[in-house]
Amino acid sequence: MMKQARTLLSRSLCNQSSSLFEESSKSSAFRGFATWVDSSTTKRADAAKPSSGRVFAPYAIFKGRAALSVEPVLPTFTKIEPGNLRIDRRGSVMMTFMPAVSERKYDWEKKQLFALSPTEVGSVISMGPQDSSEFFHDPSMKSSNAGQVRKSLSIKPLADSSGYFFQLSVTDNIHNSNDRIVVPVSKAEFAVLKSAFSFALPHILGWDRITGGDVGIAAQGFASLPKADPMQLELEWGKE
Amino acid sequence: MMKQARTLLSRSLCNQSSSLFEESSKSSAFRGFATWVDSSTTKRADAAKPSSGRVFAPYAIFKGRAALSVEPVLPTFTKIEPGNLRIDRRGSVMMTFMPAVSERKYDWEKKQLFALSPTEVGSVISMGPQDSSEFFHDPSMKSSNAGQVRKSLSIKPLADSSGYFFQLSVTDNIHNSNDRIVVPVSKAEFAVLKSAFSFALPHILGWDRITGGDVGIAAQGFASLPKADPMQLELEWGKE
Amino acid sequence: MMKQARTLLSRSLCNQSSSLFEESSKSSAFRGFATWVDSSTTKRADAAKPSSGRVFAPYAIFKGRAALSVEPVLPTFTKIEPGNLRIDRRGSVMMTFMPAVSERKYDWEKKQLFALSPTEVGSVISMGPQDSSEFFHDPSMKSSNAGQVRKSLSIKPLADSSGYFFQLSVTDNIHNSNDRIVVPVSKAEFAVLKSAFSFALPHILGWDRITGGDVGIAAQGFASLPKADPMQLELEWGKE
Amino acid sequence: MMKQARTLLSRSLCNQSSSLFEESSKSSAFRGFATWVDSSTTKRADAAKPSSGRVFAPYAIFKGRAALSVEPVLPTFTKIEPGNLRIDRRGSVMMTFMPAVSERKYDWEKKQLFALSPTEVGSVISMGPQDSSEFFHDPSMKSSNAGQVRKSLSIKPLADSSGYFFQLSVTDNIHNSNDRIVVPVSKAEFAVLKSAFSFALPHILGWDRITGGDVGIAAQGFASLPKADPMQLELEWGKE
Repeated sequence: MMKQARTLLSRSLCNQSSSLFEESSKSSAFRGFATWVDSSTTKRADAAKPSSGRVFAPYAIFKGRAALSVEPVLPTFTKIEPGNLRIDRRGSVMMTFMPAVSERKYDWEKKQLFALSPTEVGSVISMGPQDSSEFFHDPSMKSSNAGQVRKSLSIKPLADSSGYFFQLSVTDNIHNSNDRIVVPVSKAEFAVLKSAFSFALPHILGWDRITGGDVGIAAQGFASLPKADPMQLELEWGKE
Repeated sequence: MMKQARTLLSRSLCNQSSSLFEESSKSSAFRGFATWVDSSTTKRADAAKPSSGRVFAPYAIFKGRAALSVEPVLPTFTKIEPGNLRIDRRGSVMMTFMPAVSERKYDWEKKQLFALSPTEVGSVISMGPQDSSEFFHDPSMKSSNAGQVRKSLSIKPLADSSGYFFQLSVTDNIHNSNDRIVVPVSKAEFAVLKSAFSFALPHILGWDRITGGDVGIAAQGFASLPKADPMQLELEWGKE
Repeated sequence: MMKQARTLLSRSLCNQSSSLFEESSKSSAFRGFATWVDSSTTKRADAAKPSSGRVFAPYAIFKGRAALSVEPVLPTFTKIEPGNLRIDRRGSVMMTFMPAVSERKYDWEKKQLFALSPTEVGSVISMGPQDSSEFFHDPSMKSSNAGQVRKSLSIKPLADSSGYFFQLSVTDNIHNSNDRIVVPVSKAEFAVLKSAFSFALPHILGWDRITGGDVGIAAQGFASLPKADPMQLELEWGKE
Repeated sequence: MMKQARTLLSRSLCNQSSSLFEESSKSSAFRGFATWVDSSTTKRADAAKPSSGRVFAPYAIFKGRAALSVEPVLPTFTKIEPGNLRIDRRGSVMMTFMPAVSERKYDWEKKQLFALSPTEVGSVISMGPQDSSEFFHDPSMKSSNAGQVRKSLSIKPLADSSGYFFQLSVTDNIHNSNDRIVVPVSKAEFAVLKSAFSFALPHILGWDRITGGDVGIAAQGFASLPKADPMQLELEWGKE
C-alpha cells in the first residue's frame, strides 16, 4: 500500500516533469521564471529588493492547480558595543504560493506569501503523520490597518496518508479579496521540507553565527593557567 | 484533538504577540531589552562581560508569568604544543529565566541562570512525549559556600500533552531566598529547543573545531603512496 | 534476534574485508580503483570530467555480487544582477552500481548510474523499517531518444528485516540491453545512507549557500534604529 | 519511573563530579590529564603524534570502574590530478577505554582503543532502546600477526532500561593478555553519543569537504545561458 503510493507518486512526478518541460519550452521566456506568468501589466520588480551577495535557491513543489516554493530568510544583526553583533530581526522560512492560471503555468503576480517564524518552523518539523497545524498571521499588525488582512496557513494530512494539504487563505478587507491556494504535498516532499526546515532553523535563529568564526577561543592569557583537566570539565556545571 | 491544541496555541501566540507589542511601545526603551525591567537601582552591566566579536542571538519564550531565554555558550580552548588546541572548558546551553513583574514585563535583575552541560543537553533532546527530566546544580561547588545554594531544573509534560513545564527552583541559604520560576513551553517551542540543542551540541563539545579548518588533509608525502584503494578503506578498521 | 543479526553482520563484514584485502593485493593496481576491473579496452576517462578543486569521497558498499557507491553532487549557480547567485541546476545524490565480475572484483565499465533528486532523497530518508520506494528515470527525456532508456531504482526491506535490497534496472532499447544490479544493504549501512543523505540534502538544494557568507547582516544604517526589541521579534511574523 | 531514573542519574553525576574534583586536586598534575595515572615507567608520548593545527575535544564519560572517551578522527585525502582531492583513508570515531586503578583514578597506560568505522557509527546511531550491537576488529589484520589480537566491542541495554553497557574485550595471544573494560552509559550520555556521532558521520566520510569551499559554482560561461528555469530543475533527473 505504502509502496504503491510511493510508486505512483514517482511515476506521476516523472510524467508531470515531462509535461512541464514540453510546456515550458513553449512558454514565454522570462529569465529565471520562464513559466511563471505575470498577470499584471507592470514590470515585476525583483522580490524583496535583493542586495548584492544574496543566493537564491528556493525548493519548489509544482502541482496541477498551484505551486509552493520555500526558502529561508536569514536574520539581520545590529552592531553593538565593542565589535559585537546582536540579532535584530529573526529569520524565517518564506513560503510562496502561486496559483496556476492554466495547466502548469503559475501566476507570480497572484502569489501569496507566508513567513514561518522559528516557532512555527518547530511546529512543522515536529508534526507526526496524523498531525495538523494551523497558523494565523496579520501582516498589518503594527499599522492602522491591523485586522484588515488575515492570513491562515493550514497543514492537514491527506485522507490516504500519502502526504499533506498545504492551504493558504488570505482575507483582505481592504481590497475586498478572498484568496485560497491549495498545494498537495507528497510524503517525500514533506520529508524534504522537514529536513530543510531542520537545517534552516538554527540559521534563522542566528545560532550558526554564535558558533562560527573564531569566537570561543579562550584569551591567550588563559592558556598558561594549569587548569586544563578533562575531569574538571564536568565540575564546571554548577557555575552559573 | 492534536489539531485543536495546535490551533489554539497559534491563536494565543498571535494574540499574545499583539498585546506584547502594544505594551512594549509604552514601556521604557532600554536598548535591546526594552521591556525587560530592571528592578535594581544599579545600572546593569552587560551579562558575562562580552568581549569583541561575540554574537548574541537568544531564542526567547515569553509567557504570562515568566520568560525563558536560551543561548549556546561555546567551549574555550587552550593552546598546547606545536600549534594545537585542547578544549579547556566545555560549552553549555545557558538558560535564563525571568519572572514577570507585571503583565508582559520581565525583571532582568531577578533572572536566574541554569547552564545545561552537554550530557544534560543530551538528556533534553532524547526526551519522549511522556518523559520528565530533573537536573541539580550547586553553583558554589568549588568554593567554601558549597551546598549553600541549590538549583534544580525540572521539565515535566503538561497534563494535556500540549507541551512541558520548565521550572527552575533556587534555594539560597546565604541570602535566605527561595525562588521558583515556571515557564510553560508549547510542543512547537519544545521542538525548536530540541532542534536548536541538537545543532548546538557538537559545538558545545567543540567537535565543530575538530572537523573544520584544513585539519585532516594527509601530508603531501602520503599522496605518492600507492595505497589509495577504496576497498582497502574497509580494512583499516582493525588498526587501532 | 536483532542482536544476533547485527553480530553476524559485523562478523561477515570483517571476514569480507579480510578477503577483500587479500584479493586486492593480487589484483592489478589501477590507482584509486585498484580492484575495480575495467572490462572495456579503452582507458577509462575520469568520471564526469572533474575540474580543479573537486573532492572525491564516495561511500561505498561492497557485496558479493555487486557494489554500490554514493556521493553528493552539488548544485550549480548562475551569477545574476548585482553580485547575486541563483541556483541553476539542483544537486543530487549520485548512486553508482557496479556488478561483480568475479568474487570481489567489480566492473567499473559496466557501472550504472542513478541520480537521486532532492525529493527522492527525501523519500529515502523518510522510509520506515517496512517501507519500500521505487523511482523511475528517463535519461533521454529531453532528447529524441526519450522513452528509449528506462531506469528504475527499487528499495525493498529484506525478508528478515536485517536491511534493504537496492535494485537498479535499466532497459535500453537503443542498445537492446537489459541490466539489473542488486545490492543488499544492511541496517547499519542504510543508517549511514540516511544520515549522509540528510546531511547532503540542504547542500544539494543549495541552502547551505543561502546561509553561509556574510549574507544576512543588516546594513549599518539599521543599527541606529531604536527597534532592537527582543519581544518585537515575535511581532514581525505578520509582515509578509 | 523514567523520571526517577533520570533524577537519580543527575544526582549521582553531581556527587561524582564533586568527588572527582576533590580527588583530582590531590593527584599528581599531569598537564591535561591530571587524574589519569600512568602505570608505566616511561614518559607517555602524545597519542598519535599530533601534528600542528589539531584540536582535541574528547567527550569523556567517567564511571566508577572505568572511563570512556570518544573523539572523531578525520579522513585523510590524497591530492590527485588538476588540483583535486580524493579520500585516502576514511575517518572514524575513536573510542578510548581506561580502567580505574583506584576510585576515580584512570590508567592511561592501560587504555584500549577501538575505532568505529562509518558503518559501525551508523549501526550505533540507528540503535533503538532494546537493540544490542557487537563489533569485531583485528588490529593486526594486515600483518603477519593477523588473528593474534582480537577486539570486540559490545553495546547492550541495561536491565532497567536506564542506559547501555559498553564492554570492550581484547584478547592478545602475543602478550598473553585478556582485558575487559566495561563502562555503563546513561540514556542521556548515549543521546550525546548518538547526536555527536550523527554530526561526525558526514565528516568522517569526508562529505563536508565535498560540500564546502567554492566547489559547485557553475563556470562563469554558464551564467549567460538562458536556461535558468526553476521548473526545468525537476526535469534534469533523468540525465545520468
